[in-house]
Formats: sequence, structure tokens, C-alpha cells
Amino acid sequence: MSGVIYGVGLGPGDPDLMSVKADRLLRNAKHVAFFRKAGRAGRARGIVEGMIPEGAVEFPMEYPVTTEIPLDDPRYNEVLSGFYAEVTAHLAKLAEGGDDVVVLCEGDPFFYGSFMHLYERLKDRCEVQVVPAITGMSAAWTATGAPITWGDDVLSVVMGTLNEDALADAMGRADALVVMKIGRNLAKVRRALEAAGKAERAVLVQYAAMAGQTVCPLVEFDGDVLPYFSIIVVHGQGRRP
Amino acid sequence: MSGVIYGVGLGPGDPDLMSVKADRLLRNAKHVAFFRKAGRAGRARGIVEGMIPEGAVEFPMEYPVTTEIPLDDPRYNEVLSGFYAEVTAHLAKLAEGGDDVVVLCEGDPFFYGSFMHLYERLKDRCEVQVVPAITGMSAAWTATGAPITWGDDVLSVVMGTLNEDALADAMGRADALVVMKIGRNLAKVRRALEAAGKAERAVLVQYAAMAGQTVCPLVEFDGDVLPYFSIIVVHGQGRRP
Repeated sequence: MSGVIYGVGLGPGDPDLMSVKADRLLRNAKHVAFFRKAGRAGRARGIVEGMIPEGAVEFPMEYPVTTEIPLDDPRYNEVLSGFYAEVTAHLAKLAEGGDDVVVLCEGDPFFYGSFMHLYERLKDRCEVQVVPAITGMSAAWTATGAPITWGDDVLSVVMGTLNEDALADAMGRADALVVMKIGRNLAKVRRALEAAGKAERAVLVQYAAMAGQTVCPLVEFDGDVLPYFSIIVVHGQGRRP
Repeated sequence: MSGVIYGVGLGPGDPDLMSVKADRLLRNAKHVAFFRKAGRAGRARGIVEGMIPEGAVEFPMEYPVTTEIPLDDPRYNEVLSGFYAEVTAHLAKLAEGGDDVVVLCEGDPFFYGSFMHLYERLKDRCEVQVVPAITGMSAAWTATGAPITWGDDVLSVVMGTLNEDALADAMGRADALVVMKIGRNLAKVRRALEAAGKAERAVLVQYAAMAGQTVCPLVEFDGDVLPYFSIIVVHGQGRRP
């Protein structure tokens, strides 16, 4: 009997917002794998602190250092591909040996997640099951205390890593908006929101559903750089009775 | 001490995909409110069958019959507004009397949900807490066995109730796409997907994360009408190592 690789979405960060299924899989896990930066504890691992059973084998998958290689350099993809090949070989070997493995995934695995890179390499080699989860953006709009969409609103989700014109275009056409991957792109994201006429209504949420959660109008935020867990939302204004 | 109104997202339909928090609130509830159509058991109520504690008081909020009134007739909003005013008066009275109330919400309450209509009317009268949940669309893209987005993909969520030009425009500009509220709008949605060049890649998911879940390419589906729980997804094709 082969084992199953579970890509388990952990949701936005509060263990109370994990699904009943994720909670159960985790508390009964024999093997737990997770991505982390070299030298760090790992964000996904941090969410489940205290929940992994004693005796479970942990498999930290440490990203190779890529900060010196530009994203569009072919070597960037080469280094990452080698890394993914290496860790999936280990996971597949565990499954082939009959062991189930829980892979911790921040947020929802199939929504801008890292797990998809493992999934694409594992799905034809062993059984892989994905457990969906609450997205970080759901936690962010919930934190604002207002619905993200009404009626027939078009919601678009855009990454701050896009170029400024593409950002402004996508922002201008949506009724409701979510901006992720902001980090060092904040100044560009601000300019694009202004070009799209949405800067005044933009709300910045940091650490949604985590310790230190803050919510403020973007215009009232002074900084140039945001932490990883930052999301900007612009609420839709659609039809309502 | 006043009570709290909890808008509890139940997720896509599988009780195993409810959050740990939603599960706990529900299993300890003294008052449980939920929307339903007159004469029906109620979809949200159906999800939690067997989970509501004995002795809990149920408050079904039955939508007034509006099928004979067109959406753009002012009477439609009048009838619905009267209904919302009536049920929120009851919920507020319970909270003012010191009782907590769990309001069952399909999907994620602040994402195209019905709860927002109660929330807007209750938030200044009593304490209201919203528990986010896994969206139906997360369950749908998980069911397709492929990530919805890669890299910097723009994801747009559109309602089939939009007019055909608006649909085709929004569909054409997105990298990844989710179409909801399809129902009797399927023929229009198909034409818009074709105009946007995305019909060939569209995947139809019915009853995601529920009994009877089906996944098939939209081009292989013959019907003209879809059940309520139907979502079309078009996966993004973005950058990947």
C-alpha cells in the first residue's frame, strides 16, 4: 500500500481558522514537510506550533538562496527546479514506502501557493490530495469589517510584482480589488491605484488573522515597504437592497 | 451583558472543510439562524445537519417570494429591505437580551454572501463577529486538480448575471477566471467565454466538495441550465519553474 501526500492548506495563520480536516490530518501526522528559508523556522511551521504529534518526523524543505539571481535569469528557474526535484524525490520515496506525508501550505494550496510546484511533479508518481483552505485575502477583507463584493461586482486579484501599467489597467477595470505580493512594490502599487482612481478607497491590512493584525486606509500609511503578510483591498460598491 | 451575533462561514459544503472555530461555535450554539426559501429545508442548514446541539433554538429566515418582481423594479428592493429589517430586529433583540446567535452562511460571509445584508443593518446595534471560510471557488479549483494561478497571474471573479459584453471584456483581460451565479445564464456565459478566447480551457465544476461533485471541460457539457452550486474556472498559465 502506497502512502498519500496531503497538501494541507493552513489558512491565513490563526490555527482556529484551519479546517477540521486539516486539523485532524496534522494532529495524526507521522511525516510533516514544509518550506522555509535557510536559517528560519518557517512561516507555515510557525502556524502549527504545538500541533504536531510527538515522534512525527519533520522534513524542512529549505529554499536555495536565490536573492543574487534576477527572476528572469534562466539560472533562477534552474536552481529552483533542481530544488523541487530533490524534495519531491524524497516525498515520493516516503509515499512509495507506505507512509502518508502532510505538507504544510500557508493559505490555500492552489491559490498562488508554493505547493503547486511539488504537486505538478508528484501527481503522476503517487496519490496526492489537496485540502483547500481559507485564503489570506478572505482574512483580510473580513478584518476590514466590510464585504469585499456586492451584487455583480467583478473582483480582481493582482500581484504587486506586475509592471505598473499592467497593474493600473487591471485595477481600473475591477469593481473590487485585492493586491498581494506587495513588499518592496508598495510605491508602484500606490501609483497604479492612483492612476486607477482607487487609492482613496484602498485599505491596507497587515498580518490578517495573526498576532499584530492592523487595518488602516492606505493613504494613512507612511512606509515604503510592507511585511510579507500584507494585503490591500478595495471594496466593491455594487447593487444592494 | 449583550450577546454576539456570529456570521459563521460554513465553507463550500463539506462539514470537514468548516473551520475549527465554526465547528466549535456551531456545536455550542443556543440560537441558530439561517436563510432559506419558503418551503425548503435551506442549503446552509443542510450543511450542518446533525451538528446543532439538542435544545438549540432555530430561526429560519424565509426569503419573501420575489420571482414575479424583476430585479430592477424598485419594489424588489423594497420587499427585500422589509424582510431584512424584520429579521435583523429579531436577531438584535436576542443579542440585546444577552444571547449569542450563530448565523449560518454558505461559503465565506463577506464574499458575495447573503450575510452582508444583515451585517450592514446590525453592526451599529450590537457586536457582530464574522468568521471567514473556504470559498466555493477554492473547492472548485481544488476539484479540478490544478492550481488556479501561477506567478503573477491576474485572477478575476465574475458573475454570470452580468451582461454579455461586460462578461466578455472582464474574461478577456484576466489570466485566470472564476465564473459564479451561472444558472440560466449558461448560454450567455459560453458566448462570452468564446468571445474572450477562453471557452476551450473552461472547466465546469458542479457541487464542489459536496455529494455528487463533477468536473468536466465546459465544451463537453450539453445542458443549458446549471444547478446553483456550479462554478466555471479557467486556469492561469503564468510563470513557473
